[in-house]
Amino acid sequence: MIFRQLFETDTSTYTYLLGCERTRRAVLIDPVDTEVAHYEELLRGLGLRLVYTLETHVHADHVTGASLLRERLNSKSVVHKDAGAGCADLLVTDGVPLQVGDLEFEVRHTPGHTAGCVSYVMSDRVFTGDALFIDGCGRTDFQQGDPGQLYDSIQRQLFSLPPDTLVYPGHDYHGNTVSTIGRERARNPRLGGGRSREEFIALMSALELDYPKYLDRALPANRACGRLPAASHG
Amino acid sequence: MIFRQLFETDTSTYTYLLGCERTRRAVLIDPVDTEVAHYEELLRGLGLRLVYTLETHVHADHVTGASLLRERLNSKSVVHKDAGAGCADLLVTDGVPLQVGDLEFEVRHTPGHTAGCVSYVMSDRVFTGDALFIDGCGRTDFQQGDPGQLYDSIQRQLFSLPPDTLVYPGHDYHGNTVSTIGRERARNPRLGGGRSREEFIALMSALELDYPKYLDRALPANRACGRLPAASHG
Repeated sequence: MIFRQLFETDTSTYTYLLGCERTRRAVLIDPVDTEVAHYEELLRGLGLRLVYTLETHVHADHVTGASLLRERLNSKSVVHKDAGAGCADLLVTDGVPLQVGDLEFEVRHTPGHTAGCVSYVMSDRVFTGDALFIDGCGRTDFQQGDPGQLYDSIQRQLFSLPPDTLVYPGHDYHGNTVSTIGRERARNPRLGGGRSREEFIALMSALELDYPKYLDRALPANRACGRLPAASHG
Repeated sequence: MIFRQLFETDTSTYTYLLGCERTRRAVLIDPVDTEVAHYEELLRGLGLRLVYTLETHVHADHVTGASLLRERLNSKSVVHKDAGAGCADLLVTDGVPLQVGDLEFEVRHTPGHTAGCVSYVMSDRVFTGDALFIDGCGRTDFQQGDPGQLYDSIQRQLFSLPPDTLVYPGHDYHGNTVSTIGRERARNPRLGGGRSREEFIALMSALELDYPKYLDRALPANRACGRLPAASHG
């Protein structure tokens, strides 16, 4: 398997490129609109054809590259049915398997950061988006965020994976690139080490976070798969 | 590829089983609820694991086996986003590729019989559901049926396929099993041989068809993927 972890510095976003060596088919997980030219160059250099862009959720901090990639490379955008992105080509739900060449993914619904969050599980790794971060988790104070739901998602859908499963998050703000389920379950300061649901809810509810700097631009654009809807006035 | 064309006699419905010989993964196209035990036996006998049930549309004449198969075999139900079946696991749109083992499908949106009709295209064959029949086509007088739209779907999305593409329809009432795109384009009495859009609309509008005998039972059940919604009264 061809694998690249790509970092967008302005919003500390991780994008993942996965390619099948046999069929030369590929997916991008959480592509960023400003990086599309770079992805195209990378795909061309590796001799890969982009089949799907897999979104872990509708992002509040950056605009997805899904629409630009669809226009340029004829890839199809994948998102959860509850994400509120009616523009997507393929709407998924919990437990659905997806295959691209020899790459195999299972969708796990992991709401709590947003209602439509999913993680994409492969045999040895999971892409957790903004549900589970390394030593942290996504915020739960907007976009139908719900700390109790996020706790349940992480405990039931992610911490139930084998402990050596690699964790690749949607962001990191401290220079970390990868963790494991075992490590996060034991040591994640927000909800590892047996921290209770009540403790987690209290902790998340006491966070005083800044208003996301790109939210007002990113949300409507991402609900349109990265394309702002046409103005309705003449 | 393992391939079986299955016929349900009460409603003259064709169901298709396709299996990948290498991975032993399979799909069923348009399974019927009363035939589920037979599908299970067939899959077991062939050593196949059912991954998806692919619906060409929400049927008015029989109840889908999708939910029963999901419960028994953990398969996932696939239907078009506009079909009005919110119960489905995977909602598709025009042009989306789907892969199961070495089986590869492309979804083509072919509305006109219903708004959410699709055909599933493989390299040498197409499953046309109730859009295109052998020497006929689906009716257009209920479920947002629209003869002009059906004409456009068939001409643009199906008759544009290579002429030797095999046509496997969702029903046949006259003992036919398979045709080709070339044959239907040349000789389909409703819209082959260059028949115009206006002629087709006039022909379809003049049909006086019986009310489908199972419509009142089949439609609500199929909108729930084969499971009738629980009664809302106490």
